[in-house]
Amino acid sequence: MLKYYIFALLLQTTYGWFFNYPNPGEFTYGEVWPLPLNVTTFNNFTHNINPTSFKFTTQLTNCDILQQAFQRYQKWTFPGNKTSLSAPVSTITLSQINVQVTKGCDQGYPQMGMDESYTIQLNPTSTSATLKANEIWGAIRGLESFSQLVFKDSNNNFYVKTTTISDSPRFPHRGIMLDSSRHYLSTGIIKQNLDIMAINKMNVFHWHLTDSDGGFSYVSSRFPDLSAKGAYTPKHVYTPVQIKDIIDYARLRGIRVIAEFDTPGHMTSWEPGRPGLLATCYDKQGRNDTILKYIIDPTVDANLQFIGQFFDEALNLFPDNYMHFGGDETSTYQQECWLDNPTIAAWMQQHGMGKNNTALLIYYLSNLVKQVQASSKNASMIFWQEVLDQGVARDSSHLFIMLYNPIWQSYYNCDPAGFTGTAAQKQLVLGGEACIWGEYVDGTNLIPRLWPNAGAASERLWSDVSQTQDANAAWPRFHEHRCRMLSRGYQVQVPNAPDFCPDYWDPPSFF
Amino acid sequence: MLKYYIFALLLQTTYGWFFNYPNPGEFTYGEVWPLPLNVTTFNNFTHNINPTSFKFTTQLTNCDILQQAFQRYQKWTFPGNKTSLSAPVSTITLSQINVQVTKGCDQGYPQMGMDESYTIQLNPTSTSATLKANEIWGAIRGLESFSQLVFKDSNNNFYVKTTTISDSPRFPHRGIMLDSSRHYLSTGIIKQNLDIMAINKMNVFHWHLTDSDGGFSYVSSRFPDLSAKGAYTPKHVYTPVQIKDIIDYARLRGIRVIAEFDTPGHMTSWEPGRPGLLATCYDKQGRNDTILKYIIDPTVDANLQFIGQFFDEALNLFPDNYMHFGGDETSTYQQECWLDNPTIAAWMQQHGMGKNNTALLIYYLSNLVKQVQASSKNASMIFWQEVLDQGVARDSSHLFIMLYNPIWQSYYNCDPAGFTGTAAQKQLVLGGEACIWGEYVDGTNLIPRLWPNAGAASERLWSDVSQTQDANAAWPRFHEHRCRMLSRGYQVQVPNAPDFCPDYWDPPSFF
Repeated sequence: MLKYYIFALLLQTTYGWFFNYPNPGEFTYGEVWPLPLNVTTFNNFTHNINPTSFKFTTQLTNCDILQQAFQRYQKWTFPGNKTSLSAPVSTITLSQINVQVTKGCDQGYPQMGMDESYTIQLNPTSTSATLKANEIWGAIRGLESFSQLVFKDSNNNFYVKTTTISDSPRFPHRGIMLDSSRHYLSTGIIKQNLDIMAINKMNVFHWHLTDSDGGFSYVSSRFPDLSAKGAYTPKHVYTPVQIKDIIDYARLRGIRVIAEFDTPGHMTSWEPGRPGLLATCYDKQGRNDTILKYIIDPTVDANLQFIGQFFDEALNLFPDNYMHFGGDETSTYQQECWLDNPTIAAWMQQHGMGKNNTALLIYYLSNLVKQVQASSKNASMIFWQEVLDQGVARDSSHLFIMLYNPIWQSYYNCDPAGFTGTAAQKQLVLGGEACIWGEYVDGTNLIPRLWPNAGAASERLWSDVSQTQDANAAWPRFHEHRCRMLSRGYQVQVPNAPDFCPDYWDPPSFF
Repeated sequence: MLKYYIFALLLQTTYGWFFNYPNPGEFTYGEVWPLPLNVTTFNNFTHNINPTSFKFTTQLTNCDILQQAFQRYQKWTFPGNKTSLSAPVSTITLSQINVQVTKGCDQGYPQMGMDESYTIQLNPTSTSATLKANEIWGAIRGLESFSQLVFKDSNNNFYVKTTTISDSPRFPHRGIMLDSSRHYLSTGIIKQNLDIMAINKMNVFHWHLTDSDGGFSYVSSRFPDLSAKGAYTPKHVYTPVQIKDIIDYARLRGIRVIAEFDTPGHMTSWEPGRPGLLATCYDKQGRNDTILKYIIDPTVDANLQFIGQFFDEALNLFPDNYMHFGGDETSTYQQECWLDNPTIAAWMQQHGMGKNNTALLIYYLSNLVKQVQASSKNASMIFWQEVLDQGVARDSSHLFIMLYNPIWQSYYNCDPAGFTGTAAQKQLVLGGEACIWGEYVDGTNLIPRLWPNAGAASERLWSDVSQTQDANAAWPRFHEHRCRMLSRGYQVQVPNAPDFCPDYWDPPSFF
């Protein structure tokens, strides 16, 4: 087998190294992405592995997370193939991996701080491997790593790289933000994205559910008019049942779902189902109704009550302890829709706020915080940076990193802790997110546009920074990883200049 | 029914008009893209049409093109639905369209100059429509237009806009260029692209088959080493059988396949299967082998003979009267690989060419032209502009237009005849192509990246320029057209800021 690959590599060196392109055939075999903390390989020794007889085993009973993961990894470990076609080449065949979880099965939902560490023991002389984790979440991560140690040759013989791994993530929060407001994303697309997140060991789905642009797709049971009047059509919505289904799908993959309902700005799509919720805005000539309503009118008590009831329902629907309350780009709207509105301006004068927009923002946020705390004792509140920039809500802040660049190397090179600051400040960084807004993105292009590039961020967020300094050095592993996702059936796009994967993408037939 | 749509439109006007976005729900119902030359509608009168009982009929017998088109349009006219769900709303139901072709069925392949004109007669009082064309190629275009007159409401009731059309294209050459060299494209992806081309009435598939970058995917029967040693893997190739299959698939859709084998430059991928074909190149310090071989060594007679035999096979395989012989970016390579190569330079001196690279280029091209003419009397030769810029092969030139811009409006606004020139010069413009190179494109992102935007070019190339001046005015039709392709199962991406289609994209399930 070694001979085979050396030959293949020699054949491929004639191309691609020009124009600073990487070699088109440059990919690893059986390497793990994102890079585990500690990896011991045994001189490139490999076991045979037989797709039809190999077993995932565990002593854990009645554990839906593990049983469903076994089913998934039976497919993902041996994509597109049921049998080995040729005689084994290695001297030893791996017959099973046994999964041991110290704390047993978690019947709840993954939360910030879950233990994702795991070890894989796969020794040169053993016919069985062991995966150990403290929590089920670590077991899921370890299964993914194990599946990535498996590779095949061009005759569809499967091998597993004889490797021992001890691994844990660098940051606890490793997220993808999807925007389903500007363009609707089907639940099928969202689930496919959750699959790919799991393959990249990402653990937070930040769901940007509402915005000014786009339809109001979230169905509130208490306020059904919001989607009945504010969604694009009755088909372009997420019902509570569908949302629970997505949350459960994410749970089985160790992924938290953090909902975002952006307030007090970016709320235009709320207005059709809740007339009077938003402040009338005025242009420079003092004319109203020529500027779209974006921001809530917090001087109306009914509006504050509505917000409390709205979030009470949402906090009960989404089991994660964190929720995102927006706060994006409020300052412009505050000027046009609060200060330039004579009724609101008069109210502010009466309440001793003068012309201080920030005072009215704090008034709104203080109410919000009180109501959220009344609804949920565990709720931690997340905001966009603009709220912090106005000097409010400092104590509930978390730091995230985002990038707009379509080149995977720029994600790879972006370090959330790479700023100038003290060790204590860097300790406050919880992780990062790759965010994709939906102005030009819907279900047709989300997956190919987001992946595999967001996977570059996953290595930055999971792996030891000192071992993952160089995107060029990482490329062959990243290339294998992209080809692996392709083989598993995910439409992840080509990340680099001329190259190829062993299995190319073919459109699923739809007739 | 009219009531229904007015209500829907009123509902939608609350969004999207801000930030200069078009209204998300702004699309037409039953309008044709690209715009036909003459359209008469009868005060928005519509017929009912029943998917289960409607018939495509013809007097033509044994016509594979028409029979297969009927099958296709039975699906495409009524996407995703088999039955009308509710009672008809219109007073009259269209029961059939009868297709009449004056010249009968063409058993050959579509060629430059084919007649694509057609008329559709669909009167307010008639229960059957008539499609007339001189040639089968016009009948295919007419079937596409007819299918686009059909639309459905949100209850899946189908209607057909009562419309009479008389139509013919502005330009005879309306093409898409795909690059399958840098990244391999499966035959499934290529066929899917041919489907979408037919929906946009585009009639030339320009197939950029070989390049310096990438693998040599074309399998030559006479020179099998070219792909055996030059392709990425044995799976990343197009065999003669596969190529014939694609040509026949295109024929059934009235699409010509014009192959491009780029010579004398951009030939690096030919070298592994044909050592010695290319000229050794030298850098500024006179060292060889530090610059990749790109261009043929035309001073070796065996190389000229090989080229003649290679194209003899290709000209027999591809039935179109036109073939593309490249000529892209030869000048740099000529300096490094011809003039700086001492053996070639000496040969040029001996043959009275001095240091005149263009003389050697003409020597190569004259041989090529002679050999092509010996192989095929009908062959017309296409080259990239660079060859013309060097003052050779003027008499075999055709003009094409390309664009690199990802915004559909820029394609829409680009007029191939919009240059400063005489009427006689403009008469020489045969049409245009939307070209997508493969540096960052493979099967995963080709369709969403190319479509629907390339469809904007299709209106520019088909329709009367005086009726199609304004992309904003065209948007509602373009939006319907994109949604139509989506409903038919094609993964064409979102072309504009926040909007929606009645049927959103869902990933085909792959497990």
